[in-house]
Amino acid sequence: MAGLAGGTGLFISFEGIDGSGKSTQARLLADSLRAAGRDVVLTREPGGSPGAEDIRRLVLEGDPDRWSAETELLLFTAARRDHLEKTIRPALDRGAVVITDRFADSTRMYQGISRGDLRGMVDQLHAMMIGMEPDLTFLIDIAPEVGLARALGRNTAEQRFEDMGLALQTQMRTGFLALAAGAPRFCVIDGAGAPGAVAADVLARALARLGA
Amino acid sequence: MAGLAGGTGLFISFEGIDGSGKSTQARLLADSLRAAGRDVVLTREPGGSPGAEDIRRLVLEGDPDRWSAETELLLFTAARRDHLEKTIRPALDRGAVVITDRFADSTRMYQGISRGDLRGMVDQLHAMMIGMEPDLTFLIDIAPEVGLARALGRNTAEQRFEDMGLALQTQMRTGFLALAAGAPRFCVIDGAGAPGAVAADVLARALARLGA
Repeated sequence: MAGLAGGTGLFISFEGIDGSGKSTQARLLADSLRAAGRDVVLTREPGGSPGAEDIRRLVLEGDPDRWSAETELLLFTAARRDHLEKTIRPALDRGAVVITDRFADSTRMYQGISRGDLRGMVDQLHAMMIGMEPDLTFLIDIAPEVGLARALGRNTAEQRFEDMGLALQTQMRTGFLALAAGAPRFCVIDGAGAPGAVAADVLARALARLGA
Repeated sequence: MAGLAGGTGLFISFEGIDGSGKSTQARLLADSLRAAGRDVVLTREPGGSPGAEDIRRLVLEGDPDRWSAETELLLFTAARRDHLEKTIRPALDRGAVVITDRFADSTRMYQGISRGDLRGMVDQLHAMMIGMEPDLTFLIDIAPEVGLARALGRNTAEQRFEDMGLALQTQMRTGFLALAAGAPRFCVIDGAGAPGAVAADVLARALARLGA
C-alpha cells in the first residue's frame, strides 16, 4: 500500500517481546530521521489515534479477564482500523515516514497465540478489515530472560501483557522469529547491545531502505 | 444453537425501524411470559452486558462521524460477541427465554446498508465471530412516516440513528421485509395498531412457538 514510488511515504513498524527495547528504538529512529530533515510520524498500537486510544483504555485498563480473546481481537482490530484511517494513511499520503511501535504482528502473537490458538481467525480478520502490512518491520530480538528483567524493572499502569512470564515470552520470541523468516519486509536486529549501538544498526538499515 | 429440545432456552429477537414499537413489544412479551411463570431475560443491543454497554457508549455518545462504517461494524461486533458470551448463552444454557431488542438483523440493515454497501463484510464478520441466529425474530412492521413521527416525539440522548430521515427509514423497512422473506425464523407483525393489540398478536405467536 505504501512505498517509495509515486511520492508516497514509508511505513515502518517495530516489533518484539516486552523489554526488547522496541519503543526506545522507534523513538530514536524517529529522532534521527527528523534530524535528517524527514517528515516523520511516530505512533503506537494499540492506540495511535484519538478513537483507538479510547479503545485501548477500554481493553487494557479493566480486569484482564473482562474480555474473551475473541472480543479483545475485535476491539484491537477496530482500534487498528481507526489508527490506519486517521493517522497512518493520511501521513503516508503526504509522503511522511510513519514509524509505529507495534502493528499487526503483535496481534498475530498476542491475540493469535497467547490465549489459545486464534491464528486462523486473526489472519482472516486482518485480511478482511486491515489488508496492509508495513513496508519494513524491525524485529528487535532479545533473550526472553533479558526482556523480562527489563520489563519488570519498569513501572507502568498497564502491566497485563508483561505479567505473562518467561514461558510465554519464549513462545512469543520463537513466534516472532518464525514470522520474520517468512516475510522479506522483516529486518531482525540484535537488541542485546546498548541502545545507541542498536539504534545505529536500525538507522543504517532504514536509510538504506529510504535510498538515502 | 438454541432451541426447545434438550432443556435449552428460546432466543427471541425484536427488529424494526425506529418508532416501530419493538422495544415496547419486547418488554410486554417479557412481562407476559414472566406472568406465565417463565424464566425470561430481557436484553437489548447494542449493549446487553457490562462490557457491551461500555462499547455502546463509545460508539453512540460521541460525534456521529467519529468512526468509519467499518470501525463501527467492528465495535458493534465486539459488543455482540460480549453480549452473547456474558448474557445470552448463559441464560439459554439454563433454559431461559432470552428476548433481545435488536440483534444481528439490525447490523445487516444499519451497518450493512445505511453508510454504503457493507453487506458482504457484515455477513462474513457475522459468520466468523457470532455464528448464531435467534430461534424466532419478530419484525414489527410499520409505515416509515408513522415510525418517524413516533421516534421524533421521543426525547433520547442517543438521537443519531433516528436522525436519518424518511428515505432511509423507507430503505430500512424494505430491507427488513426482504430479510424476513428469506428466513423462516421471522414473524412479521403489523405494528400499526394499539400496543396492547400488537402485544396480544406477538404473545399468541410466541406461546405457539413455546408449545404452550
